[in-house]
Amino acid sequence: MDRDDELGDEPEELGAEACLRLLSTVPVGRVVYTEHALPAVLPVSFEVVPDGRLLLAVRRDSATARGLDGTVVAFQADRLDPLTRSGWSVLVHGRADILRDPEQILGALRSGLRPWTDEPDPMFVAVVPELISGRRLSASAHPVPHA
Amino acid sequence: MDRDDELGDEPEELGAEACLRLLSTVPVGRVVYTEHALPAVLPVSFEVVPDGRLLLAVRRDSATARGLDGTVVAFQADRLDPLTRSGWSVLVHGRADILRDPEQILGALRSGLRPWTDEPDPMFVAVVPELISGRRLSASAHPVPHA
Repeated sequence: MDRDDELGDEPEELGAEACLRLLSTVPVGRVVYTEHALPAVLPVSFEVVPDGRLLLAVRRDSATARGLDGTVVAFQADRLDPLTRSGWSVLVHGRADILRDPEQILGALRSGLRPWTDEPDPMFVAVVPELISGRRLSASAHPVPHA
Repeated sequence: MDRDDELGDEPEELGAEACLRLLSTVPVGRVVYTEHALPAVLPVSFEVVPDGRLLLAVRRDSATARGLDGTVVAFQADRLDPLTRSGWSVLVHGRADILRDPEQILGALRSGLRPWTDEPDPMFVAVVPELISGRRLSASAHPVPHA
């Protein structure tokens, strides 16, 4: 275990392909964008499409949809098991754009992707990953002497 | 339901007290800070202390600990149930500082707070909430005609 790891708290880094594969196993992630000059973080339903883009489902004409369109966002998803203290976390940086192509919109609707709030008339935001990083988050084998 | 809600995708806003109460029911949240000029998002174990500060547990001398110290961070936690499409999400903005007071460190150790990776010798980062916002994320009553 490399305790001087410059990348953060956990040592096992994941490659981009593994990250996308893990992302495709969860229905919700968190998008980070700028709102009133502060980072806003909001859970959103999403899916990974075959070309590697992420599609996020948001409420039509919401502040979130407007805030994301045409910006560079961070998108994070994880799966964490508190019992075993194991799991993973993936972080994507990329440009977000509201999906405007009718065929792609139809495809997203047909796939069943909907905002968490299950809005009947959602908008979709496509994120093209430019940076993908991820790590496994597992408890070390150390005992906890201070407990 | 106010579809023009300026605050985002979901309408039911939560007060600061309700937000802190909800935060205290989950063991892990996600801290957003700046790393290499990009937003980094990392799951961290945390607790709400009685004075309303958040204590985050990170690996000693990690890039995360250094990246958080003395900065303004966003901290987000949620609980989401995909079956009922219900849940909540809380977002805190505030200044983060590594805990340096030996008595407070001892108190955090005694409380059992540990990094997700269960490091035996953690550091703690205190976040003083300056802005607290939250919302319930529940499916609307609308049917989904496109499904």
